[in-house]
Amino acid sequence: MDAEEFRRRGMEMVDYVANYLENIEQRPVYPDVEPGYLRSLIPTEAPLEPDNYDDIIKDVDRVIMPGVTHWHSPYFFAYFPAATSYPALLADMLCGAIGCIGFSWAASPACTELETVMLDWLGKMLNLPEHFIAGTHGHGGGVIQSTASEATLVTLLAARCKAVRRVQASNPEKSEAEILSKLVAYTSEQAHCSVERASLIGGAMIKKVPTDNNYAVGGDMFKKMLEEDKAAGLIPFYFCATLGTTASCAFDRITELGPICNKENIWMHIDAAYAGSAFICPEFRPLLNGIEFADSFNFNPHKWLLINFDCSTMWVKKREDLIGAFKMEPLYLKHENQESGKKRFRSLKMWFVFRMYGIQGLQAYIRKHVGLAKEFESLVRADKRFEICAEVIMGLVCFRLKGSNRLNELLLKRITKSREIHLVPCQLSGRFVLRFAICAQLRQQSLNTLQTHSPPDLHTHRPKHKQKFHHGTEISKGENTGISIVVRKDSIST
Amino acid sequence: MDAEEFRRRGMEMVDYVANYLENIEQRPVYPDVEPGYLRSLIPTEAPLEPDNYDDIIKDVDRVIMPGVTHWHSPYFFAYFPAATSYPALLADMLCGAIGCIGFSWAASPACTELETVMLDWLGKMLNLPEHFIAGTHGHGGGVIQSTASEATLVTLLAARCKAVRRVQASNPEKSEAEILSKLVAYTSEQAHCSVERASLIGGAMIKKVPTDNNYAVGGDMFKKMLEEDKAAGLIPFYFCATLGTTASCAFDRITELGPICNKENIWMHIDAAYAGSAFICPEFRPLLNGIEFADSFNFNPHKWLLINFDCSTMWVKKREDLIGAFKMEPLYLKHENQESGKKRFRSLKMWFVFRMYGIQGLQAYIRKHVGLAKEFESLVRADKRFEICAEVIMGLVCFRLKGSNRLNELLLKRITKSREIHLVPCQLSGRFVLRFAICAQLRQQSLNTLQTHSPPDLHTHRPKHKQKFHHGTEISKGENTGISIVVRKDSIST
Repeated sequence: MDAEEFRRRGMEMVDYVANYLENIEQRPVYPDVEPGYLRSLIPTEAPLEPDNYDDIIKDVDRVIMPGVTHWHSPYFFAYFPAATSYPALLADMLCGAIGCIGFSWAASPACTELETVMLDWLGKMLNLPEHFIAGTHGHGGGVIQSTASEATLVTLLAARCKAVRRVQASNPEKSEAEILSKLVAYTSEQAHCSVERASLIGGAMIKKVPTDNNYAVGGDMFKKMLEEDKAAGLIPFYFCATLGTTASCAFDRITELGPICNKENIWMHIDAAYAGSAFICPEFRPLLNGIEFADSFNFNPHKWLLINFDCSTMWVKKREDLIGAFKMEPLYLKHENQESGKKRFRSLKMWFVFRMYGIQGLQAYIRKHVGLAKEFESLVRADKRFEICAEVIMGLVCFRLKGSNRLNELLLKRITKSREIHLVPCQLSGRFVLRFAICAQLRQQSLNTLQTHSPPDLHTHRPKHKQKFHHGTEISKGENTGISIVVRKDSIST
Repeated sequence: MDAEEFRRRGMEMVDYVANYLENIEQRPVYPDVEPGYLRSLIPTEAPLEPDNYDDIIKDVDRVIMPGVTHWHSPYFFAYFPAATSYPALLADMLCGAIGCIGFSWAASPACTELETVMLDWLGKMLNLPEHFIAGTHGHGGGVIQSTASEATLVTLLAARCKAVRRVQASNPEKSEAEILSKLVAYTSEQAHCSVERASLIGGAMIKKVPTDNNYAVGGDMFKKMLEEDKAAGLIPFYFCATLGTTASCAFDRITELGPICNKENIWMHIDAAYAGSAFICPEFRPLLNGIEFADSFNFNPHKWLLINFDCSTMWVKKREDLIGAFKMEPLYLKHENQESGKKRFRSLKMWFVFRMYGIQGLQAYIRKHVGLAKEFESLVRADKRFEICAEVIMGLVCFRLKGSNRLNELLLKRITKSREIHLVPCQLSGRFVLRFAICAQLRQQSLNTLQTHSPPDLHTHRPKHKQKFHHGTEISKGENTGISIVVRKDSIST
């Protein structure tokens, strides 16, 4: 394929992509395939001679699409959103063409530098403390990671390195293995499993702090655990706080936890994977108060800020803490402006999206999602058969039928089988709960743009943004929201 | 931006990309910017209101392009190649549109399944032992990682987990910390720095095995180290062999090393990051002999197999070794076909590239690169002022001016400053050496397609594929290769 053919095929692909996203609600959100479905549809080996391009595109429809869970369907309410937007898709095309591998400044100066500046832009949008902004002379700054899990691992390892050095400084006779065996990391019992995995990788013990009625960790409980562990000769070194837990979007109380961590020389990392994007809105920013105590902070614009995967942004107070933990410089990477980690030119997506939406457009988008969640919450509350299981703060609603877990498992099974909408469950206080996460994005993009110029009108501009939640006959309907809840409880037996 | 505007802007972007790649040789391969150049060219904060799209594209030319190291320029000979191809770019557009996050089968069945089948296709192209092929009932199989470093880390951690369990099975009184402090990983002194980093992360000791005159590790030296370490009470658990080292593309002798590892219960991982792609050619496949002893194997199609970053393919003999080390299943991920790791739909790129080139097209592409390296080698050998520093087996030529390191450092400095070609150095036996890696790809794509249908004619189809290596006046020139070496040695003083 030469440049000329790429021009033709590329334009066809742009059209394919536009059609896919424009008509995505016509596809069943969840695929009707059995494990192993794909293998029988394609040859067992690669072809010796080139295939025909048109056949490949036909096979996308025949082989791939029937097995796709459509994350950008308006009927998708599972997990958390996976961000996407047209400007991000355009930036990604450019990123692919440049195709540099940015592992050092010299490997592509623009890649390194735009990333630093975009993290400053975003840090300022979030009103992060000055020490997280790189500027021209800062000691801190931001960097893009692939996932929040990666950010957790990297900061846990940096904290481990720092803790070992500190202990050895005052106890030079202690071996690293001896110190490692005493290190304890902490996180909420509601934290994402990647925190436990990070500690497993880092070879450090992890303890899970119990949460309160709101599924949040507060200062008292944490303090109590610390005192006990220190008395037992252990060395607390790392606390991963969560702002917006995966299960129920709960917020640890970092204004209480931060001062404790600072006093005890514990690295405080804040994982705000989903909720972090909302902090660009002044009304949600108070939830980030306490950030001034943190050593590192991370969230995923690739979840809720219209920048597609992967784009997980992480800030550290002191860059040298990370560099100190990982620095190794072979000659073929050496350069006066050394950095590390292999990466694509991911900051282009941030640049395109920030500029094409503007801060106000992004804020409107966040508010839209939260508003939709509130609407859904009120519909659930209006039906006495249901209960809301956790405070609705952002775009996630945790709810269930009053009754047994078995009843709710059955409900979810039927919903999944209907393939009309897609949800996943979670467990809260031993109860099986349904998670309803507002996810759809592309329908909202033109809306957002409108909303920057005129007051938001959530209802009239959303004829196609039909968000349904149903199984069986209709029992409750919000006509002007486009959301209908249709659950026939009496058809479900326990 | 709505679907209609995306269609228009997308087509413009396709054209921009095609123009960029078609005329890339007109840009200086290495940018003429100073660190910090970019910050002053753009605002310090994101705009409140949306910017104009045309202004963004103008800024790509004004702000980004002047700071880009053009990895796909025919004048780029640094590091190793970063793969690209038009079919891969098209597949990436589709991947972006689907925008699923494949962390479990349910999250997108097609994503999980195509990946498994593509890894089988590629494994068969490499003629891997049957236990690495997943098929429908295999215990092994392949998975895409982001980088070879990630593959090294993952396998080292799996090996650590397995070793700890094994030791504890026969010595239940030993604590994990105690065992960890005795574990030793091994790798070549020529191995990539990521192996050392992986051991640092995993909290295990690492020892570097000295290499022979060809910069390769053989069995004798490794055996000797093992005996000493075991006598000292250490527990060898992991060996990372390299096929195609970063510095000089040397090959560890895995037929000697493999049986030792198997006998000693040491996990053998093979890192063939760059060279692995070449094993699809029968004439290079013997370099992979010994793979039958390995527990895991990894290489980067995103280096040398026309599939753009990131696509690092890894195979393991027993999938359960990996799953056992990392498995943790919260309810919101639970599914009867559980997997792990968040990923884009990267296997689409493999599918498009394998089908659009065919195995023969990919083989022709590899052979072309090796042929160009051999040509360059013979030009260097023909000039008595230069010396070849390591056997040229694949697309990398390590060479230097006979004389001091200082002389060669000066030479490289001038080459870099001229910005006409881009090279990076390495160190071999204490000597400063220039690495000349064949990298350019897009010029070759139409060639490859031709070569599948007619015998290769390397010279006549390459009018624009001018690969230059020069500074000052010309001293040696291969007219019909397109490569000219132009170094005026007498202008360089020591």
